[in-house]
Amino acid sequence: MTPKGFSFSAIKAKLKKWDKEDIGLIVSDTPCTAAAVFTTNRAKAAPVLLSMKHIKAKTHRAIIANSGCANAGTGKPGYKNALETTRLTARQLRCRASEVLVASTGVIGLDFSWDKFGTAIPKLAAMLKASPAGFTRAIMTTDTKPKLTSRGVTIGGKKVAIWGCAKGSGMIHPNMATMLSFIITDVAVPKAVLQSALKEAADGTFNRLTIDGDTSTNDTVFLLANGAAGNAPLSKGGADYKKFVQALAAVCTTLSEKIVGDGEGVTRIAEIKVEKAANANEALMVARAVARSLLVKTALHGGDPNWGRIICAAGYSGAKVDQGKMELYFGKHAAFKNGAQTDIDEKKLAAEFNKKRVKMRLVLNRGKAGDRYLFCDISHEYVTINSHYRT
Amino acid sequence: MTPKGFSFSAIKAKLKKWDKEDIGLIVSDTPCTAAAVFTTNRAKAAPVLLSMKHIKAKTHRAIIANSGCANAGTGKPGYKNALETTRLTARQLRCRASEVLVASTGVIGLDFSWDKFGTAIPKLAAMLKASPAGFTRAIMTTDTKPKLTSRGVTIGGKKVAIWGCAKGSGMIHPNMATMLSFIITDVAVPKAVLQSALKEAADGTFNRLTIDGDTSTNDTVFLLANGAAGNAPLSKGGADYKKFVQALAAVCTTLSEKIVGDGEGVTRIAEIKVEKAANANEALMVARAVARSLLVKTALHGGDPNWGRIICAAGYSGAKVDQGKMELYFGKHAAFKNGAQTDIDEKKLAAEFNKKRVKMRLVLNRGKAGDRYLFCDISHEYVTINSHYRT
Repeated sequence: MTPKGFSFSAIKAKLKKWDKEDIGLIVSDTPCTAAAVFTTNRAKAAPVLLSMKHIKAKTHRAIIANSGCANAGTGKPGYKNALETTRLTARQLRCRASEVLVASTGVIGLDFSWDKFGTAIPKLAAMLKASPAGFTRAIMTTDTKPKLTSRGVTIGGKKVAIWGCAKGSGMIHPNMATMLSFIITDVAVPKAVLQSALKEAADGTFNRLTIDGDTSTNDTVFLLANGAAGNAPLSKGGADYKKFVQALAAVCTTLSEKIVGDGEGVTRIAEIKVEKAANANEALMVARAVARSLLVKTALHGGDPNWGRIICAAGYSGAKVDQGKMELYFGKHAAFKNGAQTDIDEKKLAAEFNKKRVKMRLVLNRGKAGDRYLFCDISHEYVTINSHYRT
Repeated sequence: MTPKGFSFSAIKAKLKKWDKEDIGLIVSDTPCTAAAVFTTNRAKAAPVLLSMKHIKAKTHRAIIANSGCANAGTGKPGYKNALETTRLTARQLRCRASEVLVASTGVIGLDFSWDKFGTAIPKLAAMLKASPAGFTRAIMTTDTKPKLTSRGVTIGGKKVAIWGCAKGSGMIHPNMATMLSFIITDVAVPKAVLQSALKEAADGTFNRLTIDGDTSTNDTVFLLANGAAGNAPLSKGGADYKKFVQALAAVCTTLSEKIVGDGEGVTRIAEIKVEKAANANEALMVARAVARSLLVKTALHGGDPNWGRIICAAGYSGAKVDQGKMELYFGKHAAFKNGAQTDIDEKKLAAEFNKKRVKMRLVLNRGKAGDRYLFCDISHEYVTINSHYRT
């Protein structure tokens, strides 16, 4: 279920040699408040640089997104092309260019085929409809399936819908960001409150997942709220705000899980929970080091409960961990305690490591802070996909 | 050529199910000065913890090393076993236990088979001979070949030899350290001067290479100097010191190259030089981020000059790079300039990327500092080896 007042379109513009939609448009009937989170990579793509400006506008009407070309590493011409994209879209929708947000994904450095966009945009504006299916396909690259989800929540007595979609797969590591994700809702909410809600929701979800440790040049989350639900505008704090953030976080969580589960070549996903860290930063450093470790990821791939690699990653994470105090659990089973392997039957550990979703819990016994990270294995298929991504 | 006054032995102790030497001994006829560099991982293996104490002794006589069991994550029993190893070795050589250094490599967490060591050590002491061949095999794990090299240098009119061997392959990332390496020389040199020389030599070599980004629990470099060359003891600074450090660095460089070239599943190696960084730390951060990037490594594997991934890695390195100022070269050819791809024929870039050794040069145009990193591709074979390393 998509929220009231939004429509969608998508087109096969042949930005790459493929037979699928590759430019998509989301339009709100009425002006929205908007919030966004962008990649922290300093080599930001043109659409990111442009959208960082456009997001400052008071209201927004549309998001235009494409796959096949990241429009990153394209210099001034690339920026101009991104700008033209928003200008042409705005002309079709009779709004300002700054009310149009733009996102791209695909190969870095490839020329942006402006001609194809110039032809596609008027068509996209003319074919808007209620179904988002084409749009969810238009943002896919090596994703094997569209990723979408929705939640309903009652705010001030009114039914509010939150709908989101995402593309993931490779070059995925947080801070922000992770991928492209577009979330729309019909809640009525002032811009500042919406931004705060998105930050809260993204921090524990999109910013806590990794596939290959590479933070992309293009990662973006957009959130549009058009107020069509008719609730009294949401204010920060209070029960309604909390309910909304929870529902929004649920959407982000589901999208995060779908992204990791559909990571390039993924066969197994894992969650590392770090507990009793001295402070929040330490918990995050340890969780991130484990989730990023290539040796942990390949052990995960083989279903080999090689706990030593997890202790090793914690050791080089930069956190001042003490190996004599650490406890490591796979599911319910303790694998490591008092600086050494427990006497547990190795088969029980192997059984936990052979699940489709592996749960790891590392207790540092240094304080009260905790954090978690979602990650996946690295397989032969990942190597195959990424050795010849451009060809 | 090994330096005067050292002898070697190795034995097939069956620490794993393999048919190769797995415990080795290096002995100096006379007391040596010794220097060492150890892993910065906080989850240090027992032999590292013990050798960090032993290295404080004034003189040393021997190094005992094994493969097949890392003696890491083995708690107090593991530490006791490492200590017993040095004690028994010392009894055979009629020296103090603190004069024996110890290093282990292999699976983390595996029980240390003390019985096998107890039987092997007297035999090792009884079979010492001039050839180091067995020793160089005894430290191998997934290495496909022994790694050794030597240099000669004239110091104070005396011929000095420096010989070293190393084991590498996986779980290799600097800070220190990288792997096990044992270097011996017959130069006469006070302990403090030797330590300073080793630090200088290791910093630009062993600490600037990465295979998979995982800093091991066991990484160690030992350097023994027995003075048999008969030179007047080396002092810090001056032409002779410089000559010695250069020769030592040459040994470390050759061993580093051999380690990366024989990394697990490696088909191609690469060097990233970062130039004109604002400061030394920035240069190092950028070089390391590129060398660690899984996407750069897989592109390298496929021989795909996907320069966008290098710019991307520089962007998320943490350094305040400016994409508009960066220039990226493959060999002599500029791939990226003024924020975008150059108009070079892509085939020329592909030719550079298909060499056995790829040279990348990233000019930040922010200052005068530089650094370099040696790394390798990540292949299907790497995934295969590390999915089932313990089985």
